[in-house]
This record gives sequence, structure tokens and C-alpha cells, in this order.
Amino acid sequence: MDLLSVLIMLVVLLALAKVGSMVFTRFGVPGLVGEILIGVLIANLVIGDTTILEMLGIFIGSEGVDPSSNYVILYTLAEIGVIFLLFAVGLETRAKDLMSVGKAAFLVAILGVVLPFILGFIVIMVKDGNMLEALFLGAAMVATSVGITARVIKDMKLSDARESRIIIGAAVIDDILGMIILAIVVGMAKAETSGEALSIVSIATIAIVAVAFVVVVLLYCLKINPILYNKIMEYKQAKLAKADGKPIHHMDMFAIAIIVCLALSALAEIVGLAAIIGAFLAGMIFADHAHEWKLEAKVESITDFILPLFFINVGLMVNLSAFTNVDIIVLSLIVIVLAVISKLVGCGLGAKLGDKSLDKDSCRIIGVGMIPRGEVGIIVATIGYSTYHILTPELYSVVIFMSVVTTIIAPPILSKMFRKKYPEDMWADAGI
Amino acid sequence: MDLLSVLIMLVVLLALAKVGSMVFTRFGVPGLVGEILIGVLIANLVIGDTTILEMLGIFIGSEGVDPSSNYVILYTLAEIGVIFLLFAVGLETRAKDLMSVGKAAFLVAILGVVLPFILGFIVIMVKDGNMLEALFLGAAMVATSVGITARVIKDMKLSDARESRIIIGAAVIDDILGMIILAIVVGMAKAETSGEALSIVSIATIAIVAVAFVVVVLLYCLKINPILYNKIMEYKQAKLAKADGKPIHHMDMFAIAIIVCLALSALAEIVGLAAIIGAFLAGMIFADHAHEWKLEAKVESITDFILPLFFINVGLMVNLSAFTNVDIIVLSLIVIVLAVISKLVGCGLGAKLGDKSLDKDSCRIIGVGMIPRGEVGIIVATIGYSTYHILTPELYSVVIFMSVVTTIIAPPILSKMFRKKYPEDMWADAGI
Repeated sequence: MDLLSVLIMLVVLLALAKVGSMVFTRFGVPGLVGEILIGVLIANLVIGDTTILEMLGIFIGSEGVDPSSNYVILYTLAEIGVIFLLFAVGLETRAKDLMSVGKAAFLVAILGVVLPFILGFIVIMVKDGNMLEALFLGAAMVATSVGITARVIKDMKLSDARESRIIIGAAVIDDILGMIILAIVVGMAKAETSGEALSIVSIATIAIVAVAFVVVVLLYCLKINPILYNKIMEYKQAKLAKADGKPIHHMDMFAIAIIVCLALSALAEIVGLAAIIGAFLAGMIFADHAHEWKLEAKVESITDFILPLFFINVGLMVNLSAFTNVDIIVLSLIVIVLAVISKLVGCGLGAKLGDKSLDKDSCRIIGVGMIPRGEVGIIVATIGYSTYHILTPELYSVVIFMSVVTTIIAPPILSKMFRKKYPEDMWADAGI
Repeated sequence: MDLLSVLIMLVVLLALAKVGSMVFTRFGVPGLVGEILIGVLIANLVIGDTTILEMLGIFIGSEGVDPSSNYVILYTLAEIGVIFLLFAVGLETRAKDLMSVGKAAFLVAILGVVLPFILGFIVIMVKDGNMLEALFLGAAMVATSVGITARVIKDMKLSDARESRIIIGAAVIDDILGMIILAIVVGMAKAETSGEALSIVSIATIAIVAVAFVVVVLLYCLKINPILYNKIMEYKQAKLAKADGKPIHHMDMFAIAIIVCLALSALAEIVGLAAIIGAFLAGMIFADHAHEWKLEAKVESITDFILPLFFINVGLMVNLSAFTNVDIIVLSLIVIVLAVISKLVGCGLGAKLGDKSLDKDSCRIIGVGMIPRGEVGIIVATIGYSTYHILTPELYSVVIFMSVVTTIIAPPILSKMFRKKYPEDMWADAGI
């Protein structure tokens, strides 16, 4: 454990991320795009014989991580960063507001899952007919990286917008559906490779537990939370009256909020969902009083510090040397175009069907907001490549590339469209 | 890299730390004492065949860390936590205010180094006459863990108090002196074990570089900083005038502050000082405008989250099973008493000699504030034990125990004395 080497890594990464973010912000593009591209740059730029990444003590192996590698630290801080980002989004989302967009969010999620999956599946079936590969590409196309869109929404201070609510709600449902699809695809891969039968029961169990987790937290927010809050306030009043002017011990709500956030993140992982879904739900638990307890500002200080590492880490996954082959470049372009169109059309249509009051611009905003595949697409690709050896190295590179490119192109379009839709100056302060 | 296991570790540690902190706070004892004791508890409480520590995936080996161990994460977060704590203290300390207590701080540091070193040296020489062991115990007795006192000062909102300034200033000088002594002791150990000659030149170089580092930052704060700030303000005014009412891109001072903090922490490590000394100096660079840029509140949000891990980590080092031998218990008690008295008398005397205006209570406060050895004593002990095999396992346990006990007993006394000296209600809000 070499603290100095970790400090040097953090200084270099955060300084480069800031430079990347500032340059892009100047041109009206959300800063996270610059941060991701910095990640791509330092993973691929070779000085002498080593990449900048290796100079910083970061070694990312596909077969587990070098124990002496600073990547363990980088990865953990990146994950904690995006967990707190979604927690912050949850803090700005009241459960009943989320419920009010429930139907639209549901249809956005469903159509935004079906269309990408089918298109991804067809591409590979047409190309070489390998069904397992086709299923994995489909599963990767389904992913939505809500962290990317959440950052844009938060930076523009548009968490209250109806489109934002629908996107976030749909992303939660999308994560559940994506998890079920991945479980089915992995089950089929296991059935194919080891002869293990695909267990409908176990997949149904996974699905039921995940849905139950989300429903229980929502019910808690809607029914139990207000009662509990009133009890606590009564207790506090009684204590204040008894203290007779002397100072009393206040509960440290920030510490409690952090513990609940991390606990629900862990629980989400346990039931098979992404940690960030748990963090978002945890945020909702505190949403009614987040402002009173200054939770948002405090959580934002933490994400200001470590969130750039998350976007850098997304960029780190791109290995540009894979793209020397024309076939791979062509396939990448096709997959990227389909990934964009399928979410745009699927989610846009879902929004229109689910909420007639939404105009064309709103439906487009929702479609664009669901485009980024980010780390979720990368995770699916890594499972298909490293764990089950179904994706070829080439197809793995294609999926990673698709995940990162969709993540880079959506935010600038999204921020432009949001700015057109909400021309008030509310986002001007954010420097976007 | 198992995110789930890290999340579970964080939830359990932070929740236990909160409970420990709350219990002690109720009884008027600073919460960090509870956090340290929680660390001692989970490192030593065995359930079935394993400690709680092992259940959390934390394995602390004296011979490097298990690569799969969550301890890498815990240790790094703990260090970042204390780095930001000292950064926050620096933000509240103007360079010229520190200079105004320079003479007193210098004498406090000098006498607070000489007396503990001599007493530590004598104890071992009387006990078994092993000079290298005696030198290492002396070096460990010299250490001051400013993080502990800093937390008490910050929680009580007493950074402005003259005593606080002297303690912090003395701690910076103490770290330089301690580093020089450690370099000499290590040099003598090497000379003894491998026949390598003790190099006066290399030790002098280390000392000069460390002093130069601190002096350069202080000069920067006093001379260059105000000029630079005015230039930036002029530039900003010009830009505002040119923008003609349109929003301009503000500099993100928090991001810049974090980068400078981590960079100076790394630099401090490079010149042989503790990272926290660099963090403190970095804080001073921003002290004049910390309030304007809301840096303190933001940094505090980060330490609220991770600092408890630092105090837990101090407690984790204690292995209670070493204390079954009566000789070790007696030796520990003697060493602890000497560790307390030597700093109390040495630093108190230094304060009186350095600043005639200080009364008896102030001198005592300064003496008590310098008592905790904390992680610095533990680091010296580990170098003497693991790296140079000079300390026996028993003496190693004694030094660790001394470091932790001095760390636990000083804060309650310090907060009581501060409260007596400054009976205003300013600290009441802090819940102490």
C-alpha cells in the first residue's frame, strides 16, 4: 500500500479531468464528455514503452487486477462517486412524483428494452448466425447508464422536469429488465457450454426479488416515512421542551443518510440490481426533508471530488488499437447507429404512448436521455467476454466502443434539447 | 474487485463508528474516542473462529496486504480522510496568524521532542540496554498525531484560539524534527545491521529539503498569494465587463483546491514529511478566501463521510492478545505515563518560554494537545518492527498500545480544558 503513488494518481487524474471538462464546457458540451475522453487518452497514449495509465500504477487486466495496482482504488472511488450521484438524484425525487410518471416510465423502459434487444440480436444473426453472441449483443444494447444522463440533469438543475422524472423512473425499470434479460442470456450460455439446464424458476426468483426490493422501498417512502418523520419530530419537540433551553444532541442526519445510501446500494447488488439503483432509492427516502437537512449540498461536495474518476474510468475501457481492422470499424458504426436509433425510437414511442400530454420535443429528450450505455454496457460485454468466453475479442471491443460512444454523443444533444425546451436561465449558473 | 464486499465493509464500519461516537458524545467525551475503541473492538472480538475484521474481508498482515483484502480500500479512504481534515484546519489558519505564534510553536516543538526522546531512550537502556531498541522507542515517543487534536479543535470551533494555533504550528515543526530523528535512527540501525555508514550528508539533505518545502509554501502564502488573487480578480472583472450581462464561466475553486491539497500532500510525502503536513499547508494557501468560496463546508462534507474510517483504523492496530504478560502490561504503563508527562511538561514549558502572555491553563492545553501519538507513533513502531526487525514483537505491541492510549486519553481532557478556558456557547452546537 503506497499512499504516495495513490496520491499522485489522484492528482494527475483529477487535474486532467478538470482540464478536459473545462475545454468541453467552453464549447457548450457537458464536461463529462471531456472527462471520458481524457480516460480514453490516458489509456491509449503511449510515451516511450508505457501508457500514461501504467505510469500511474494502474493496471487493468481482463483476468482480475494486479494486487499492487492502483486500479483497485480508482475503481472503488469511481463506483462510490456514481453511487453518490444517484443518491443526489434520489434526494431530488419524491416517491409520489415518480409514481405520477409511472405509466410513461414503464412504457419507455419496455419499448426501450425490446427494440434494442431485437436489433442487436438481428445484427449478429445476419453477420455470422452465432446465437449466443447475438443474445449477448442484444443484452448489451438494452443497458442504460443513468449516471450519464443524471449528471446532465443535475448540472442543468432540471431534476424537477417531467422528462427528467420519466427518464430516471424508466432507468430504474430498465435496470430490472436488463438484469432479467442478462440472467436469461447467461442461463442459455451455461446451458449451451456446460449442459446445465436453463432454470426458469431461478430466473423468475431473481426477477421477483428485484421487483419486490424496489416496490418495498417505494411503499416505505409513500406510507411509513411520513409517519416515522412525525414521530421523530414529536420526540425532538418533547426533548427540547425537557432540555429547558440547554443544548440538546441533534441527530446527525448526514451520517445516517450516508449509511442508508451505502446499505441500500449493497442490498441492490445482493438482489442482482446495480448499486446505483439502491442509492437512488435511498435518496428518495430522504427526499422530503433533504433540503431541511442540507443533504444535497453535502452529497454534492463528495461527488464534486470523486465523480470525475467515474467518467475517466468509463473512458479507460476503450482500447483503440483494436480498431485497425476495417470490418470492426464498419460493424462498430452499424451497432452504434442501431443503438442510438433503437433507444430514440423505442423510448420516444414509449413516452408518447404512456403520456399523451408530452409533445414531440419531450419525447425526443426522453429518447436521447436513454441512449448512453456507459458502464452497464461495458459490464455486460465483460461478462460475455471474460466470464463466458462467448464474445470474441473483436466483438467485445465493438460493444465497449458502442457503450462509450453512445455515452459521449448523448449528453451534448440532451443539454441542447433541454436548453431549447427550458430556455430560462436556471442552468446558466452551472456553466454549461 | 468486489464492490459488494467493499460496500458492506463501509456500511458496517460507518454504522459502528456512528454508534461508538454517539455513545461517547453523550458522556461529554469527543466522539473520535468511541470510533477508535470501535476499531479496537472489531479487531479483537472473535465470533466463532474469526474476528469481525476478517468477516468484513479486512486482512492486515505485517508483511504486506492480502491483495484481495478490503484493507487497501479502508486504509486509503482513512488516509484521504485525515488529509482532508488537516486541509480543513489549514483553511482556517492564515499564514500570518501562524507566523505570529512562531516562536512559541518552535519552542513547544523542540522541548516536546527532546524530553520524550530522552525519556523513551532511558527506559529501554535501563531495562535491557539495547541501544537500537532504545533509539526506536525514543523516536516513537517524539511523534505527534495532529489529526486527533485537530478534530477536537475543529469540532469545538476553536481554530482561532491562540492555543490551537500554537499546537498546529508546533505539530508541523514536530513532524520535521520527528522525521529527522527517524532518519538518524534508521541510519544507525542500517549502520549496525548492514555495516552501511551513517551518512550525515544525506540526513542533512533530508532536513534541508523538508524545511525548504515548508518555508517555500509559507513565503508563497505571505508574498505571492495576495498578488495572484488580485490579478485573478482584475481578470474576472475585465471578463465580466466584456461579457456584458451574459453568464461567464466561473473557475471551480473547489476542484482547484482539492487538486492543490492532494498535490501538496504528495509533495510532502516525497520530501519525507507526512502527507497531512502538505494538506495543512495547502489549506493555508486558500485560507484568505476559503469562506468566500465555501471551501470549508465542502471539505467538511467529505470528512464527515470518510474521517471515521481513520479513527477506526488507528484502533484496528491494537492487538489485545499481546497483553497477557504482566511484564508487558507494566512496561506499557510506564511508557504511557512517560509519554504523557514528557509532552505535558516539555510542550507546556516550551509554551511558557515562547510566549510569556500565556497563562498556566493555556500552557496545559498546549501540553495536552501534543500528547496523542496516533498513527505517527504506529508508523515509527512498524518501521522498527517490520522493516528493520529491531523492535521485539512485545516492544512493538507496547509502542502501538502507547500510541493508541495517548490518543484516547488526550481528547476528553483537552475538550474539558478548552471548555473551561472558553466557556462561551460557541462549541455547544457541535454536540460535544
